[in-house]
Amino acid sequence: MTITVVGSIAFDGLETPSGVRERIAGGAAFHFAQAASFYTDVRVVGPVGDDFSDEDMALLATRGTNTDDVERIAGGKTFFWKGKYHDDLNTRDTITTELNVFETFDPKLSDASKASEVLFLANIVPGLQRAVRAQCEAAKWVALDSMDLWIDIMRADLVAAIGEVDCLILNDGELQQLTGARTTYAAAQAIFGWEKAPSAIIAKLGSYGATLYTNDGGGFTVPVFPLENVVDPTGAGDTFAGGVVGYVAARLAKDPGLKVDRDVLAAALIHGTATASHNVEAFGAEKLADLPGSEVQARVDRLVELTRSPDATIELRA
Amino acid sequence: MTITVVGSIAFDGLETPSGVRERIAGGAAFHFAQAASFYTDVRVVGPVGDDFSDEDMALLATRGTNTDDVERIAGGKTFFWKGKYHDDLNTRDTITTELNVFETFDPKLSDASKASEVLFLANIVPGLQRAVRAQCEAAKWVALDSMDLWIDIMRADLVAAIGEVDCLILNDGELQQLTGARTTYAAAQAIFGWEKAPSAIIAKLGSYGATLYTNDGGGFTVPVFPLENVVDPTGAGDTFAGGVVGYVAARLAKDPGLKVDRDVLAAALIHGTATASHNVEAFGAEKLADLPGSEVQARVDRLVELTRSPDATIELRA
Repeated sequence: MTITVVGSIAFDGLETPSGVRERIAGGAAFHFAQAASFYTDVRVVGPVGDDFSDEDMALLATRGTNTDDVERIAGGKTFFWKGKYHDDLNTRDTITTELNVFETFDPKLSDASKASEVLFLANIVPGLQRAVRAQCEAAKWVALDSMDLWIDIMRADLVAAIGEVDCLILNDGELQQLTGARTTYAAAQAIFGWEKAPSAIIAKLGSYGATLYTNDGGGFTVPVFPLENVVDPTGAGDTFAGGVVGYVAARLAKDPGLKVDRDVLAAALIHGTATASHNVEAFGAEKLADLPGSEVQARVDRLVELTRSPDATIELRA
Repeated sequence: MTITVVGSIAFDGLETPSGVRERIAGGAAFHFAQAASFYTDVRVVGPVGDDFSDEDMALLATRGTNTDDVERIAGGKTFFWKGKYHDDLNTRDTITTELNVFETFDPKLSDASKASEVLFLANIVPGLQRAVRAQCEAAKWVALDSMDLWIDIMRADLVAAIGEVDCLILNDGELQQLTGARTTYAAAQAIFGWEKAPSAIIAKLGSYGATLYTNDGGGFTVPVFPLENVVDPTGAGDTFAGGVVGYVAARLAKDPGLKVDRDVLAAALIHGTATASHNVEAFGAEKLADLPGSEVQARVDRLVELTRSPDATIELRA
């Protein structure tokens, strides 16, 4: 079962306590594909400039990812973002944002990309997410990411876009910003109450992991994978989404009639966390590009052990 | 199986977005006992002044908690803390700290309190925690809490105190401060590497729940209980500890030879989270004092459902 992902392909300039990279390939669709390609075929839709080299494209095509719909804009430059992380890695300063070819991005999907049964709408203008969603009539399961900027300036469009997907993936702070709710749980309940709403919401909690909410009252939380050190958190959220959506697609491939419910998504959170944990141990996609699937599996196994349910039965006093 | 808890009994002045309380009973030992008393007999050791009324003492004695070792200092005043929470409830400003009788607290344990098989050393001067620990030779399982102040000014004493208990309970930030480690997992590993170390460490993650680490590589994470609103987080950590230690004591009561391992403590985290979730829905101990055990059980059941392990099996690409 093929996943189509629509989103940014970028060069990132990165400074973290572990080092500096002047310019390496990144972007939401890029990181997503690096992770999702462990699970299934991926087709990437996004724009690059003349400066995106064959080597960069080969990296994007890791594990067979299809780049036919990567649009190379003649005379254009690839989206460039430069940021510096603080010592705790939880906060960062943006030093440069050059949208370049991403500024006028108008996704053009081939028939093959439109035919994918799973779709991931990475963070782009909500109106474009809706346009892509409308073109992908074959999509059985669709997830969407966004950012604070669109909540601020295009909230109505974003709400409409969210109402057309199965699963919303946002940071916990963004969920609260979107709804005005005081807890992430309350934010999820508010969204489930919208006239049109997704059936699942995944809150990314940064260094605290991720939490799932489903509209039938279900939920699950996966802690961050236990690491001694983090080198570069850039792209962790998109790598996580790649593991989540990749796992769902792999499950749907085995059972096309599968209901993507709490149990499926709970397992997906484990896979997303495992892939993201590898991503943050190196700059950009340096680690995921050559990573054997067995190393993702080892971390899935560890997370399965760390989330194994105990028997909590005891008699309480009245 | 009886628990002895040694720690502060206080009056708190509280201002949160939900309201104001000028002066209500609180303190670490107080909140701990409110929670632990759902599970087993509790004996409280701590100092109060003349201003601690019979009504306050009756509240401390909820669900049969024994207050024989609550020392009333004639002419003294009870420890008073006043704080104001910011809108997000994750940060607070201390407005007043009057140690009063707590400043010269020298715990005096009756033979009955020394004979308890479970001991909780709430946050007091590390040297006093050690002195209490030494007096409780019968204790089979001991947990300890502390705070940033002692890490700053009495680190060696605190390290020694931690080395003499079975379970350390600290905030994640305090664990990193204590060890200089960059992740909470790395902090736990550093402590397990000490010459004398506890076999379990519980990191309190504030609004993100709590994570367990055991020295045999085990772990477990419980998310915060899903609430629409939080009224007053004061005492949440001590209430959590009360549920954790209370559950362990109840399990030991059923099976005195029980090894308090990852599975026991994972379940204990669920109980601690359930009790703490009730505590934060009202000021001070206003909710826990009259709360039926069935309402704690209902939240335990919900957390058991939210932490139920999924099957995450899938075949990854090589």
